[in-house]
Amino acid sequence: MNPNAYPYKNEPTWSRSEKAIARTAFDAALGRELHEVVQETKRRASQIRQSSDLWDLEHYLTECRKQIDRKYDYRYSRLTDVFGRLLYEGRVSEDELSGLRGDKLESIRSFAEFLAKDAA
Amino acid sequence: MNPNAYPYKNEPTWSRSEKAIARTAFDAALGRELHEVVQETKRRASQIRQSSDLWDLEHYLTECRKQIDRKYDYRYSRLTDVFGRLLYEGRVSEDELSGLRGDKLESIRSFAEFLAKDAA
Repeated sequence: MNPNAYPYKNEPTWSRSEKAIARTAFDAALGRELHEVVQETKRRASQIRQSSDLWDLEHYLTECRKQIDRKYDYRYSRLTDVFGRLLYEGRVSEDELSGLRGDKLESIRSFAEFLAKDAA
Repeated sequence: MNPNAYPYKNEPTWSRSEKAIARTAFDAALGRELHEVVQETKRRASQIRQSSDLWDLEHYLTECRKQIDRKYDYRYSRLTDVFGRLLYEGRVSEDELSGLRGDKLESIRSFAEFLAKDAA
């Protein structure tokens, strides 16, 4: 058995350089999204006036955590969809993904377009 | 049947003036505790440096909400224990409770002492 053969059909293999590009782009997008949540949390906290604002902040944080956990799934079998979503949301740029193989970029763009149509 | 007779044995009735005193003391303690949580939330939010600080804040808020929900139970059948705990925690003063009947103050002090011994 060829140890380099990927066991699942239709799931692209990731070369070492592609993995490096993916990791960098993924971490950058996650870092930016977390930074946004931090800024929004500080803004909301500074404006707390009554107890309902406290529990609104709690709810906001819970939702952010769940949504980030779902979105940032670093499994190679999921990664083209993950980047597709990040591209659709403007959280990753095509520049950051350059260096990935053409078939992957195509899958990523195609999922981004699917989400854009779905939202329309 | 006497409509003023309280249906449960050993549970004191609350006169109109006692209810007013209880409500004021209860709301004041709750307001102070919520104010503390607001201040602590603002302090923590201002010091967020990394994502784990976000989820620590979320956890802190969840725990506060649950604990406050449990503690501030305004049922007359529970109120002497509620004030006993608030007295033990220093969240209500004997002054704020003055005007309650002697047997209630005794129950309140007795539960506060029980909690103090339990914690020791």
